[in-house]
Order: sequence, then C-alpha cells, then structure tokens
Amino acid sequence: MNKKLLFPCLALVLGSGAGYATSVMAQAKPDVLVKQRQAVMTLQGKYFGPLGAMASGKAAYNVETVRRNAGFLDNLSRMPWDGFDPNTKGEKSRALPAVFENKAKFDAGASTLENEVSKLVSVSRSGDEAAVKAQITAVGKVCGACHNDFRAK
Amino acid sequence: MNKKLLFPCLALVLGSGAGYATSVMAQAKPDVLVKQRQAVMTLQGKYFGPLGAMASGKAAYNVETVRRNAGFLDNLSRMPWDGFDPNTKGEKSRALPAVFENKAKFDAGASTLENEVSKLVSVSRSGDEAAVKAQITAVGKVCGACHNDFRAK
Repeated sequence: MNKKLLFPCLALVLGSGAGYATSVMAQAKPDVLVKQRQAVMTLQGKYFGPLGAMASGKAAYNVETVRRNAGFLDNLSRMPWDGFDPNTKGEKSRALPAVFENKAKFDAGASTLENEVSKLVSVSRSGDEAAVKAQITAVGKVCGACHNDFRAK
Repeated sequence: MNKKLLFPCLALVLGSGAGYATSVMAQAKPDVLVKQRQAVMTLQGKYFGPLGAMASGKAAYNVETVRRNAGFLDNLSRMPWDGFDPNTKGEKSRALPAVFENKAKFDAGASTLENEVSKLVSVSRSGDEAAVKAQITAVGKVCGACHNDFRAK
C-alpha cells in the first residue's frame, strides 16, 4: 500500500465519527474524548463484572477467567484518564464538576485503581482463591469510591 | 465490605445500563454486547490512529507511543469478538450480515488482526523505525480489509 494513501484510508476504515480525523492529528475533540473514556468504562464493566460476581459468590470461581480479565483490566485501567480533559467540561456525561475541581483527588483515585488492578494481576497468578477474591473486592471498592465522588447517580 | 453486599453494590457502581446486572450473571443482552464491541472499536481507533499517522508521515515518529499503544492494542484486539454473537443480528449497528453468514472468514480476520498486532508489539520493541512503520501499515491493512467485508459504509 502506498504509504501516502494510508492516512486517509485509515480515517475511512477506522473513523467512528466526524471527530476522528482530527483526533489522529492533534488533541481529540471533546465529544470524542468523552466517547473514548466512556468506552473504557464500558469495557471495565465487561471484564470486572464477572469477577465481582465470583467474589460475592454469585458466579463460580474460575481462575483462568480472573487472570484473563485482570490482564485486560490492567490495560484498561490506564486508558480513561486523558479523556477527562478540562475541554470536556461542557459535554454531556455523568462526570461531576468535581473531576475538574478536585483534580488531585481524582488523579489519586486513578492511581489507586491502577495499583489495585496491578495487584489483582499478581495475586491471580500466585494467590489462593480467598486472596484473589479479597483483591477483587479491593478493586471494587476503588471503583465505587471514585464513582461516589466523581460520577452523577 | 460484607461480600454478600458486593454484587449489588457493583451493579450500582459499575452499571452502564439496564442490561448490566444480567451481563454479570450470564450471557449479556444483545444491546450490551453491541455496546461493548463498539467500545473496543472506539478504543482501537484511539490507539491505532496516532500510529497510522506516524506510518504515513502525518505525525512525528515516537517509539514510546508506539510501544504503549501497541501494548494496549494487543489487549484490545482480543476483546471484540465475543460481542459478535448471533443474538446481536437484530441490533442496530454497522455490522453486516456477512459477520454471521461468513463466520469462518470473519474469525480468520479476527485471528489475523490479533497476530499482526502481536507482531507490532514485538517489532516496536526490537525493530527500527522503518520496520515499525511497515508493521503499522500491515495492521492498518487488516483493519481495512475486515471493515470492507463486514462493516457497512
């Protein structure tokens, strides 16, 4: 493929909206940033949900699922934060103004999530079922605490 | 936290719609599956877009960005496929009937994407700029080929 054709081609094949071509070249538009960070939250739900169900005894424990999902979550937990750009303040979303007004606390919550998920990866490789479930619970608490402070009900 | 309280709590804090509680316990509802697979595509765009721009000379080459994004894409490329469940045929999306009617070809495309992204991870760690850009181009071709066959214009 002619490399000079690749970029416009990519914009066509990958584009998920009018904001896409811009997002490749520079700061993404606010609506694109919101869509991207919400996409991460959707996928965190997809991969954490079954683990929460295991930790609470609502689903059978399956260590292979925990390991796979923890690995995905380890990546996903690092993806949302650049989407909370101050430029997105005016966009429709459930993010409360506190995200931007109390950025230090928000950033601390983000780091805590990354760290607790990273621990879940480690524990799921070496730990016993009780330890894994306890770490799943720890991750769930971090999700909940941040949503309580920074997300509209 | 009382573990018996964790599941309902998770449903509240993580839920992204009425279908969520169901998705934790069993097969997710079709609309949730579509939302989840579209979320993956959105994020693949987020992390592949800048690489495409580098490969085509529209953005400055930055190997650290390539490595980070390739790592994210290596995970993301394994996330969409269970969302293309036959139960989602009736949902509004750009997925063409060919996804379900030509499943062997679709699955082959999925595997090819995973493999080419995995190669990008390797090449970005060890290869030179030209090799990395060539592999970015290879990944872009796989995206485009599959979208041509299986996604509405």
